[in-house]
Amino acid sequence: MAKRQPRKTGGGCKRSLCPIANVLDLVGDKWTLLIVRDLLFIGKRRYQELADSPEHIPTNILADRLKRLEKEDLVAKAPYQTNPVRYAYSLTPKGADLKPVLLAMVTWSGKHVPGARKPPAKFLKGM
Amino acid sequence: MAKRQPRKTGGGCKRSLCPIANVLDLVGDKWTLLIVRDLLFIGKRRYQELADSPEHIPTNILADRLKRLEKEDLVAKAPYQTNPVRYAYSLTPKGADLKPVLLAMVTWSGKHVPGARKPPAKFLKGM
Repeated sequence: MAKRQPRKTGGGCKRSLCPIANVLDLVGDKWTLLIVRDLLFIGKRRYQELADSPEHIPTNILADRLKRLEKEDLVAKAPYQTNPVRYAYSLTPKGADLKPVLLAMVTWSGKHVPGARKPPAKFLKGM
Repeated sequence: MAKRQPRKTGGGCKRSLCPIANVLDLVGDKWTLLIVRDLLFIGKRRYQELADSPEHIPTNILADRLKRLEKEDLVAKAPYQTNPVRYAYSLTPKGADLKPVLLAMVTWSGKHVPGARKPPAKFLKGM
């Protein structure tokens, strides 16, 4: 994480060498991590379930972030019905491995955000 | 983190009850967490040092995020010279408590991002 010049990847786009920046390139926005939260802790699977989160994610952003997550192998989708086709989303092992990041946020919030709701104990296993 | 309606704060803006969303409201963008990284792990203090990060944070975003971090009591600033006045930035205890979040990202990156650089061992104390 020391100061170094970014390198160029094969596609010509610059990528930081920092492992934290690498994660943030993939999930470094609020909405993406809220989608991961819903898939990981709340068991949501369908597009409409994800769209119904209390934070009211805009549907165009939801669709975009799901595509990105799928492209980066953090989320997989599989059809649960045909005609019309509908997909169910789930975290891949790579996506599910973000759990400690989210749990660390839960801990921080419990300490520093007055009134933050404490999640059910089952979510906190493995902390 | 179950599905619940957001509540209204005194200012009329809606805030999620979810502890993860609470954190993301404060630091839920790539640039903010990179600033926290630089202050926490790399020991940067001055505006120009922060602006010189290898990820090339735009200076208008840097200035905006520092103001927000200060407003939320995650960062403190103190003058290190006068005429013209120049400020040094540092994490408050609340900001420094984000360390486990960033360390969890380092762990994830080490497992899932090919070529991610491993940080020096001193950064990994307390993991």
